[in-house]
Amino acid sequence: MTKVLTILGSTGSIGTNALQVIEANKNDLKVGYLTAGSNAPQLIQQALKFRPKAVAIADESKYLMVKEALSGEKIEVMAGREGILNISSRTDVDLVLNAIVGTPGLEPTYNALRAGKTIALSNKESLVMAGEVIMDLAAARGLPILPVDSEHSAIFQCLIGEKKTAVSKLLLTGSGGPFRKQESGTFADITPEDALKHPTWVMGRKITIDSATMMNKGLEVIEAKWLFDMDPENIDIVVHPQSIIHSMVEFCDGSIKAQLGLPDMKLPIQYALFYPERKKVKWENTNFFQIAQLTFEAPDFSRFPCLRLAYDSLKRGGTAPAVLNVVNEEAVYAFLDRKIKFTDIPGLVEKALGAIPVTDHPDIHQILEIERISKEFLKREIG
Amino acid sequence: MTKVLTILGSTGSIGTNALQVIEANKNDLKVGYLTAGSNAPQLIQQALKFRPKAVAIADESKYLMVKEALSGEKIEVMAGREGILNISSRTDVDLVLNAIVGTPGLEPTYNALRAGKTIALSNKESLVMAGEVIMDLAAARGLPILPVDSEHSAIFQCLIGEKKTAVSKLLLTGSGGPFRKQESGTFADITPEDALKHPTWVMGRKITIDSATMMNKGLEVIEAKWLFDMDPENIDIVVHPQSIIHSMVEFCDGSIKAQLGLPDMKLPIQYALFYPERKKVKWENTNFFQIAQLTFEAPDFSRFPCLRLAYDSLKRGGTAPAVLNVVNEEAVYAFLDRKIKFTDIPGLVEKALGAIPVTDHPDIHQILEIERISKEFLKREIG
Repeated sequence: MTKVLTILGSTGSIGTNALQVIEANKNDLKVGYLTAGSNAPQLIQQALKFRPKAVAIADESKYLMVKEALSGEKIEVMAGREGILNISSRTDVDLVLNAIVGTPGLEPTYNALRAGKTIALSNKESLVMAGEVIMDLAAARGLPILPVDSEHSAIFQCLIGEKKTAVSKLLLTGSGGPFRKQESGTFADITPEDALKHPTWVMGRKITIDSATMMNKGLEVIEAKWLFDMDPENIDIVVHPQSIIHSMVEFCDGSIKAQLGLPDMKLPIQYALFYPERKKVKWENTNFFQIAQLTFEAPDFSRFPCLRLAYDSLKRGGTAPAVLNVVNEEAVYAFLDRKIKFTDIPGLVEKALGAIPVTDHPDIHQILEIERISKEFLKREIG
Repeated sequence: MTKVLTILGSTGSIGTNALQVIEANKNDLKVGYLTAGSNAPQLIQQALKFRPKAVAIADESKYLMVKEALSGEKIEVMAGREGILNISSRTDVDLVLNAIVGTPGLEPTYNALRAGKTIALSNKESLVMAGEVIMDLAAARGLPILPVDSEHSAIFQCLIGEKKTAVSKLLLTGSGGPFRKQESGTFADITPEDALKHPTWVMGRKITIDSATMMNKGLEVIEAKWLFDMDPENIDIVVHPQSIIHSMVEFCDGSIKAQLGLPDMKLPIQYALFYPERKKVKWENTNFFQIAQLTFEAPDFSRFPCLRLAYDSLKRGGTAPAVLNVVNEEAVYAFLDRKIKFTDIPGLVEKALGAIPVTDHPDIHQILEIERISKEFLKREIG
């Protein structure tokens, strides 16, 4: 039986990898809908190749370009936030892969769940900002949330067939980013070009900067808390520069299970798209004799303050992680635009967490309001 | 509910570790029966402490010593092969842990299965010699065989909740033994004292020598073939000197699952005794920041010919692995008794495999006959 998929964020790193997985499995997977942020030429190309029923582009200024290119193709074209929300609510698909980058991914996740769709979730911001809302909604509808992040996919796989009560710890591995061994005294001079050189993973710009500050690992701790219902004190970060072990679970009997593989996002994407089946891949397999060595280090919370900020926001709860996420995201874009320094990112997040009041158990509207407030806060701070 | 256990081979390394696990879990586990090879003083001590219904000692010359020490204790005492077979057939227990060392473990495994008992199997020789007979019998009775070897326990744990058809490879890890880096030109001078120094695991003498020749890993390949129904060409050996990853499973989608932990036999023993539950341990847990590094190497089939002999015997099938096992076992004891050199072990095994005709699909009697023939062969060879 062919699975029909919606891919939200089809022109990003995860989206394009997902389309490669679909192309390699034409008999099993089919594209129902595609959405993109602003890359109109790539969306057009994808639409012509994968023949979705409809596409949407968030950047309204690109609407006409897409519309004209697809005229006569029997592919509906929409644009703007409304277009994305419309497509994320469509019910005539089997699975929605949310690969939108950043905070704009939250509402589509919420919509897809409300439409009764199983989600393969790459947009970690949905859970960082609205973990309680999203998990409650998924539970109420009886829908699984299938993680696409390699770390969370690893934990998900390690938990298969195991009882929740037997789990004592989640061990989230991370490469440590490009500045793992760099003196923190030099961090203020880091340029976007420096920070975009990730040692092991090829990813989008936003997540690559988050890996450099290690905020990405912090966001993943928050994501793991919600996905797997674990207390933050039982979620540890293990720096593992080779990125071969994708994460681990420790059980109460001292046994640890790890999921390993090459650092290729196609693997966790394919796992989520085919779940609960495992589908044969033709790609390169792990060769332990080539790997030769795996190493582990403790994370350095003093050189990478974003880690502490993420744990602190999670302990505070309510809208605190949403503030952390939005301010970090805006600060990362400001850093990429050379408006602030690398070391300003954690400073701005910390300031925002201190300044913006926390609402406990927020609903989706309160979270979207916090998003607005956080963006305004950052705009005032950096002008 | 308390589980009542028979421990066959209670004074060996696995047996004493198992009794430590039982002592730490008095409310859940209870000793029903104990058997030992020849260590009468320790068996007596264990009987007085754990109060089994009956004990048996294989060495008949020790019968009176045990009988007298336990007189008036309401503990039945038996001796010899008949005593061991009697106890392995008792039905008033929940689980039989077979921790007998070597070929004498085969008949007790067979008996326990015929008595309808679930087996926690540490005696790998049962499967190496009679894999087809044992697995067919277990399947016919609907009884699981719970592995106690750390490698097979690891694979068993990695397979939980996964489909058999999704498995592409088993990756058996091994420390490589004490001579991993030693020039093979010096192997002829290896003494029993040298070979008994295992780098990571504390184990009995027989298995420690098998680790030094790497025959142990070869026997484990044969054991894995039967336990997990895998073709030998899909069972790979990965040398991993730190013994932290206890083994791995590769799935068809490129994902690998590994089970890790400290090299402490109490962990896989406890896992088997409590299966399908995981029970909290108070023992030391793995600390990845202390481990720091895991390394992997290809096994060296030329310096360790026992590996090739094991694979070859498995490919030949029938009674070939039984010959390999019996001749190796007798050769190891001859080496420990300084009757032969370390390098004679694989030579004798190879000679026996060439000389003793193979019977396909042997029944238990044919296998016991092969055991006798193999022992006679070796006696003639080494005088």
